[in-house]
Amino acid sequence: MIELPSERPLDLDRADPEREIRVRAEAFRNWGRWGDDDRLGTLNFIDDAARARAASLVRTGEVVSLAQSFDTDGPQRGWRRRTNPVHTMTDTGVEAQYIGQGFPHGFGGADDVISMPLQCSTQWDGLGHIFDHGMAWNGRPAGEVVTSEGDLVTGIEHAAASVVGRGVLLDVGRHLRPDTGELEDGYAITAGDLDATIEAQGARSAVGRGDVLLIRTGQYARTRRNGWGEYAGGAAPGLSLTTAGWLHRREIAAVATDTWGFEVRPNEFDAAAFQPLHQVVIPNMGLTIGEMWNLDELAVRCAHVGRFEFLLSAPPLPITGAVGSPINPIAVL
Amino acid sequence: MIELPSERPLDLDRADPEREIRVRAEAFRNWGRWGDDDRLGTLNFIDDAARARAASLVRTGEVVSLAQSFDTDGPQRGWRRRTNPVHTMTDTGVEAQYIGQGFPHGFGGADDVISMPLQCSTQWDGLGHIFDHGMAWNGRPAGEVVTSEGDLVTGIEHAAASVVGRGVLLDVGRHLRPDTGELEDGYAITAGDLDATIEAQGARSAVGRGDVLLIRTGQYARTRRNGWGEYAGGAAPGLSLTTAGWLHRREIAAVATDTWGFEVRPNEFDAAAFQPLHQVVIPNMGLTIGEMWNLDELAVRCAHVGRFEFLLSAPPLPITGAVGSPINPIAVL
Amino acid sequence: MIELPSERPLDLDRADPEREIRVRAEAFRNWGRWGDDDRLGTLNFIDDAARARAASLVRTGEVVSLAQSFDTDGPQRGWRRRTNPVHTMTDTGVEAQYIGQGFPHGFGGADDVISMPLQCSTQWDGLGHIFDHGMAWNGRPAGEVVTSEGDLVTGIEHAAASVVGRGVLLDVGRHLRPDTGELEDGYAITAGDLDATIEAQGARSAVGRGDVLLIRTGQYARTRRNGWGEYAGGAAPGLSLTTAGWLHRREIAAVATDTWGFEVRPNEFDAAAFQPLHQVVIPNMGLTIGEMWNLDELAVRCAHVGRFEFLLSAPPLPITGAVGSPINPIAVL
Amino acid sequence: MIELPSERPLDLDRADPEREIRVRAEAFRNWGRWGDDDRLGTLNFIDDAARARAASLVRTGEVVSLAQSFDTDGPQRGWRRRTNPVHTMTDTGVEAQYIGQGFPHGFGGADDVISMPLQCSTQWDGLGHIFDHGMAWNGRPAGEVVTSEGDLVTGIEHAAASVVGRGVLLDVGRHLRPDTGELEDGYAITAGDLDATIEAQGARSAVGRGDVLLIRTGQYARTRRNGWGEYAGGAAPGLSLTTAGWLHRREIAAVATDTWGFEVRPNEFDAAAFQPLHQVVIPNMGLTIGEMWNLDELAVRCAHVGRFEFLLSAPPLPITGAVGSPINPIAVL
Repeated sequence: MIELPSERPLDLDRADPEREIRVRAEAFRNWGRWGDDDRLGTLNFIDDAARARAASLVRTGEVVSLAQSFDTDGPQRGWRRRTNPVHTMTDTGVEAQYIGQGFPHGFGGADDVISMPLQCSTQWDGLGHIFDHGMAWNGRPAGEVVTSEGDLVTGIEHAAASVVGRGVLLDVGRHLRPDTGELEDGYAITAGDLDATIEAQGARSAVGRGDVLLIRTGQYARTRRNGWGEYAGGAAPGLSLTTAGWLHRREIAAVATDTWGFEVRPNEFDAAAFQPLHQVVIPNMGLTIGEMWNLDELAVRCAHVGRFEFLLSAPPLPITGAVGSPINPIAVL
Repeated sequence: MIELPSERPLDLDRADPEREIRVRAEAFRNWGRWGDDDRLGTLNFIDDAARARAASLVRTGEVVSLAQSFDTDGPQRGWRRRTNPVHTMTDTGVEAQYIGQGFPHGFGGADDVISMPLQCSTQWDGLGHIFDHGMAWNGRPAGEVVTSEGDLVTGIEHAAASVVGRGVLLDVGRHLRPDTGELEDGYAITAGDLDATIEAQGARSAVGRGDVLLIRTGQYARTRRNGWGEYAGGAAPGLSLTTAGWLHRREIAAVATDTWGFEVRPNEFDAAAFQPLHQVVIPNMGLTIGEMWNLDELAVRCAHVGRFEFLLSAPPLPITGAVGSPINPIAVL
Repeated sequence: MIELPSERPLDLDRADPEREIRVRAEAFRNWGRWGDDDRLGTLNFIDDAARARAASLVRTGEVVSLAQSFDTDGPQRGWRRRTNPVHTMTDTGVEAQYIGQGFPHGFGGADDVISMPLQCSTQWDGLGHIFDHGMAWNGRPAGEVVTSEGDLVTGIEHAAASVVGRGVLLDVGRHLRPDTGELEDGYAITAGDLDATIEAQGARSAVGRGDVLLIRTGQYARTRRNGWGEYAGGAAPGLSLTTAGWLHRREIAAVATDTWGFEVRPNEFDAAAFQPLHQVVIPNMGLTIGEMWNLDELAVRCAHVGRFEFLLSAPPLPITGAVGSPINPIAVL
Repeated sequence: MIELPSERPLDLDRADPEREIRVRAEAFRNWGRWGDDDRLGTLNFIDDAARARAASLVRTGEVVSLAQSFDTDGPQRGWRRRTNPVHTMTDTGVEAQYIGQGFPHGFGGADDVISMPLQCSTQWDGLGHIFDHGMAWNGRPAGEVVTSEGDLVTGIEHAAASVVGRGVLLDVGRHLRPDTGELEDGYAITAGDLDATIEAQGARSAVGRGDVLLIRTGQYARTRRNGWGEYAGGAAPGLSLTTAGWLHRREIAAVATDTWGFEVRPNEFDAAAFQPLHQVVIPNMGLTIGEMWNLDELAVRCAHVGRFEFLLSAPPLPITGAVGSPINPIAVL
């Protein structure tokens, strides 16, 4: 029997990241759960019946886009060569109007191109995005999965028809900080915080198998007011490593936050650590993670109608071999 | 009173493209219909009630992705500087496994970037994509709308929360060519063909206000079997210019095909012409057009269950100022 | 007779940029000087004989590269969508060594791609880079020269065989600030400063017809020591607008500095102004300007040997239609 | 004592590529020749004295650019994700003239960006471009040299001040095919062909230590007349594998041709082989190779003046970590 790590809030040995990561990686590992050939991980928890139920949640038909903008005014600072998108025009209306473009009969057109990191703005992390001790999702050696040609096994194109289902918003920022709605940078959200938010929002906010969990910290609202600052990689509120078991037991399909990095930053160890919760949940649990979502308008709408569940549609672009995808997630209320 | 152009099949004066385009542009122009500030055109036909009804169409919860792949094996040949996407990795699993990446405690990662035209694969044309005699959607001078900084007025980000609603597939290829399911290149689909397909598929395939109409020609299936050939810009089946009125009267929100260019190619004039139906419906009617959709699996599933209507979710990526967007449209059956 | 503007140091009416720019634009305009079809401007001053003389300057054969690096650690901050270069690998040695690449007989390879603004690092400004009241070099309407397809007339490819000649370094930073070798940000270099530097360096530092003049301010050395700060677009030492006549009378072929913007910043007017010396010398004089050159090692070598003239080879990449080019300028001593 | 492979023309065992490659790799290996830390290989053969002598070759001062164009009309077809360059404008003269750009006092500007493989047009192969059985130049394991971050050891930036010296053109196409000046595709140039061309051109065409050897096959002229066809990777004239020893003994610094791939294609083996001469000369000999040079105008000029030697300046762009560089090589006659 596997000894599950404690889940008392923040009960971590801050001096021993190796062990804290390892025990969770082993305890919450889903390798083989969906067969040796699996490419989807916890997205398998969403089945057709779950999607049909999710569609039945729609009441008013109101749609909210959960995407941040894709443009040069984004938060990226160059870390890991991540820039903001560079969007340029190859034809313009100015030319159609003033000088003509060589088309007959008054036809005119504009066209455009983009260069961008796939994780520059609102995104899904693919299963090939993170490794644990050289191993990728489902126990595959990382070098057999992601080469310079891309993710040859779990490329995000395999999830093209997957991420549609029941979404649940937990507005932890509003619950814990009712005055501002914003958790402070460095705040580690615990399993207890998640449970308390559910309790406050009502039983219909409980999350279970196949759900897509959206966690609002409020940091995005703060950066929109104050400027990006260190949004990309700096201090931020986010999930504690100690929530790994909670996420595992709920059998959620995917989880997303309004922050750059999903988990709390700085990470919860004295010694150097880097995104330990990613290391546990992506390659081991097979959990799909969303980052840089805009949950502010959704939070307002959900609070207004008193319901925090909805139909969520957030399929990735099927970029062959990608380890992430820009997305425009849609909530239908 | 405006004299409506004839809509008898292919009743065009092939020698007078100027007039044939102009009369339709004037007859089916929606400028001002949604106010002077409108940025959405016919997408306004989708309202919350329409989306709620669309959600209620979901039966089995089966999801079909309507996207083609985004990779270097796509059809682009360089016309208007449109290349296939170039996707490259900035970190790989090979390195995580064999040489390490400088992260602590066994953490490893892969990251990636992309360069691509926004209309390289499955896409929406934004309202700023096409102009008519120097005028953009809603009667705005093209030069005030799309500059080298992008579409300053009708950028596709404004449609971020719009394109979710009832989708209807008209499998014209299957109806007209029951043996192959594929229309031949150069075949001009008429209003009569659309009506006949609806009649054959049944009354639930009728399209009306706020619907998103998907028209399958079968050309994509042919190119997948035989190679891309001239898929990007060459001869193709597609809508006749004479369908403009049919599209207008149905008050559809958007329309998409499985071809590169939506309308029949070569275009239906003896003299040089270029995408005359685009010229009528985008800047004048305000119709959002989808191209390069993969409708083959959807056609199989719809035929199997005998229903050709479904919940369609196809929001664009909110790329600020873009005149088009790569998309992964999702049908939920 | 044209009234030449005063060239007393900094004798500008800081409240009247329009006039100060206009009188210089008119006084130093070279339109038509090399015929109506000219595409080279002052690069015409370099002829074969000048290049032969320049080659004869070579003594030791020592080569100094005058390029800054091209990488993500550069100074760009996103202004005008100018990012630092993003260089990515499409194949790597790690894969050749550890997993193989599918080539026979032990062959392995690495390949790479880049996305970058053409003026992200060491560069030439092409003649189509700047306009004056809608007019481009040689009196052409700007809209007939540079469209979204690029510079159709004076694209930098036309200078592919031009920029080889005598280079002269004026180390103004060292002359005026012998202790640090660095002018302070905002310092406006005058014609008198240039003359004084020549006098200090010796008669062989005089510049004349067809020479390429390199002016070292020392700002680049400071940023390399202290961090880029606002190197890209912030305060900087540079040429005063009042040097326009000096540059014109010398009949130099081109001029370059070690700063982002060539001329002093903030610009020398109380009211808003933007790069007025560019506006005078590029579209009017036809002068090719280099920016972001690394002149520090060259300055050391020149001082060491007591000669500040050399063979300079700095041809642009012939990117069709470009209004600028990344370069690696070479001085042969 | 190493047994040198035979150099009788085309004396290869076409059935044994492994052996033919290995014996040459071992025989002509320069590992350690310039110390364990070397990053330049045969570029070390160019010293200051050689450059001073090269400069003294200049007679008329005429300059010839040896670059092909960099634009979308290039030969790339997508192999290894190599596309032609995509150059786009971020500002245009059309806007400066017709609608203004928000700058004061009549200032206007145009700016541009590019996305391109570093080996899309005229280029140097860096020393990290090719590996032999997992080993890179100077005996380093390939995985320690080129990662997804680029070439960490022999990145082309280290050659920024190197490639200036004596150039010698051997117009083999003209010598062997005096009527057309063009070798047929698949023609393997032998050491004897090189010697015969030198003899025909005269003693001043002999090549030796530190020279940069330019070999014209004439294929580029043919493709410019007939269309690119399979220029990128198809059949082509080029050097025979049997020239490896000739190249080694001459102690040249670098070599370039007017073809896509430098060596003859198809390669000279019955069994599958891929660029065996690259495999011998880049990682083993440390030879810098140039490809896709335009040698046609240079050939005309050299023939006209009866001299085939000149000052060559072809420094790479110092793109940090690049395994190749776009270049505009310049010959000064």
